[in-house]
Amino acid sequence: MKQKITLKHIARELEVSISTVSKALKNSDEISDDTKEKVQAFAKLYNYKPNNIAVSLKNKRTKNIGVVIPDIVHHFFTTVFRGIEKYANEQGYNVIICVSDESFDKEVINMEMLNNGSIDGFIMSLSAETQQKNDITHLKQVVDQGTPLVLFDRVTDELECDKVILNDQEIAYEATKKLLKEGRKRIALATTESYFNVSEKRADGYRQALNEYGMEVDNDLVLVLPYNDIQESMIEDFYDRAKVDAILSVNEIFAIQCISVAKKRGMKIPEDISFIGFTDGLLSRYSNPTLTVVAQHGVKMGEIAAKMLIDRVESEAEGSIEDTYRTEIVQATILDRESTIN
Amino acid sequence: MKQKITLKHIARELEVSISTVSKALKNSDEISDDTKEKVQAFAKLYNYKPNNIAVSLKNKRTKNIGVVIPDIVHHFFTTVFRGIEKYANEQGYNVIICVSDESFDKEVINMEMLNNGSIDGFIMSLSAETQQKNDITHLKQVVDQGTPLVLFDRVTDELECDKVILNDQEIAYEATKKLLKEGRKRIALATTESYFNVSEKRADGYRQALNEYGMEVDNDLVLVLPYNDIQESMIEDFYDRAKVDAILSVNEIFAIQCISVAKKRGMKIPEDISFIGFTDGLLSRYSNPTLTVVAQHGVKMGEIAAKMLIDRVESEAEGSIEDTYRTEIVQATILDRESTIN
Repeated sequence: MKQKITLKHIARELEVSISTVSKALKNSDEISDDTKEKVQAFAKLYNYKPNNIAVSLKNKRTKNIGVVIPDIVHHFFTTVFRGIEKYANEQGYNVIICVSDESFDKEVINMEMLNNGSIDGFIMSLSAETQQKNDITHLKQVVDQGTPLVLFDRVTDELECDKVILNDQEIAYEATKKLLKEGRKRIALATTESYFNVSEKRADGYRQALNEYGMEVDNDLVLVLPYNDIQESMIEDFYDRAKVDAILSVNEIFAIQCISVAKKRGMKIPEDISFIGFTDGLLSRYSNPTLTVVAQHGVKMGEIAAKMLIDRVESEAEGSIEDTYRTEIVQATILDRESTIN
Repeated sequence: MKQKITLKHIARELEVSISTVSKALKNSDEISDDTKEKVQAFAKLYNYKPNNIAVSLKNKRTKNIGVVIPDIVHHFFTTVFRGIEKYANEQGYNVIICVSDESFDKEVINMEMLNNGSIDGFIMSLSAETQQKNDITHLKQVVDQGTPLVLFDRVTDELECDKVILNDQEIAYEATKKLLKEGRKRIALATTESYFNVSEKRADGYRQALNEYGMEVDNDLVLVLPYNDIQESMIEDFYDRAKVDAILSVNEIFAIQCISVAKKRGMKIPEDISFIGFTDGLLSRYSNPTLTVVAQHGVKMGEIAAKMLIDRVESEAEGSIEDTYRTEIVQATILDRESTIN
């Protein structure tokens, strides 16, 4: 019973990371000659041939699309997925999802698994760890093999491929201006670590609006929260040390948790403090007060991503390879609810 | 460019349903001889051989598990998925998900797609439509081919395979008794259509508790809601026609929506009306008031399902085929929050 050899097997056998194996097989300068020789010899010995497999299967259409997303707990990703499914199903395509759980290794393993001839192309949003490491060797490999790839939301400037993004900076600027127009003076930003490119763009928009109103950007007003497992004490500490009268949050869960702690401290919403959060999810609609949100139009984003991918898959099948990649920008909108003064 | 022929192609070409094709290929008595001949001739002509493909690939382990779930919006299914991933990853398995969107056809197509040698076994929960049609030909086929299958939550008595379920009847009985002990006299049940076997079991537990307290089961107190796209007016109408002082809801979203309408009507919670809902999700934790819930322990259910599947995959690989199937029962618990008098 001979198993197909994968990047993971090679990494385990040689006690190096998956990233190292992937780079060594691409002959990257970042990897020592010694390691490259070992990895390449091992790959040859066990007949590891990702390119050959992909090429031999390339002309066989599967009518399946592979989707790799960071998690299925955040409402935004499940909403984009529904948009992808809607458009893909209408065009007679099926959709397979894998979840990277914000892990680089899982993202690589999932892509390798799907890219063995099971799918015609990928739609994906990068894991936190991939953005942090800034290692996209596995994506470059997929593109080099000629497998169509569309990135959405969490994209990278370092890869040329089709992309769908939100007007993150512009809408964060608009949301911050809305809070400034309410007369807020101490507007905080609840955000993630800065290696998330979307969070960075939202922070840019936030700073741009403050500057325009002649207000200083105070780093004490930036609350950096972990993406998962937020402790209430982190938010308590923030309210203790920074006097704030509004919070713009880069996601819904942060906003809801900041509201929950503010209420426990007896702060009145929106009299004492206003809140705006990204993502128009169920939590925002049923929270008390309901949350004013930046609607990211995830279904639309998913539909656009699916259309871009299927257009490319089908044009390549007809031999008319499209060489220029496109970036489509979805326009977010602000939905007024009870957490701001409207 | 010759595409692999699938059940869907055959169904489309012959203008019959996927279910008919599937049954015709299994020579089912339910299908007319004429249709069976047509389907079988077409399948032969285009070389449709699901069994052969599966058999030829059977001895090749992929270390992948296929998960087919009805949706990724309900918190319960995403939680079970996390449990499956947790255990599977620890054992060196990857997980691929497909979503049936509550559609029978999509469930069949997804299973067929995954069962082409990509995975070692299935973990799944039946779609609404599959339960409504009560057609499990596609599942029987998978089991007959020797592909391990574990059903969770939405299972069927008509298939012998490994299963993981909740003690639905017992915990609904306990939850109803909790409301009776509060002194509630008009306890409603917010539920789905009766073809969901879990909803039926929860309804049985609800009736059992009422009977034990010598109370009549009043059908006017049963609010049947559609699984998706609930209109507020349905709940308004229910409150108009049925005077209720407590609601047991078979899922979290129904409970949150009933609370939302009750608040708009000026009902005080829990003074005027109490609520208990199944599923301990984010909505329950952040709603106002917070919702007393039946915690279904989805992560645990997922871990058990993954362990059952992997044990079977690995014991079969070693040649020691386990002939007896098991049903594991996860014990739910009630978490007291603000929507009941505790």
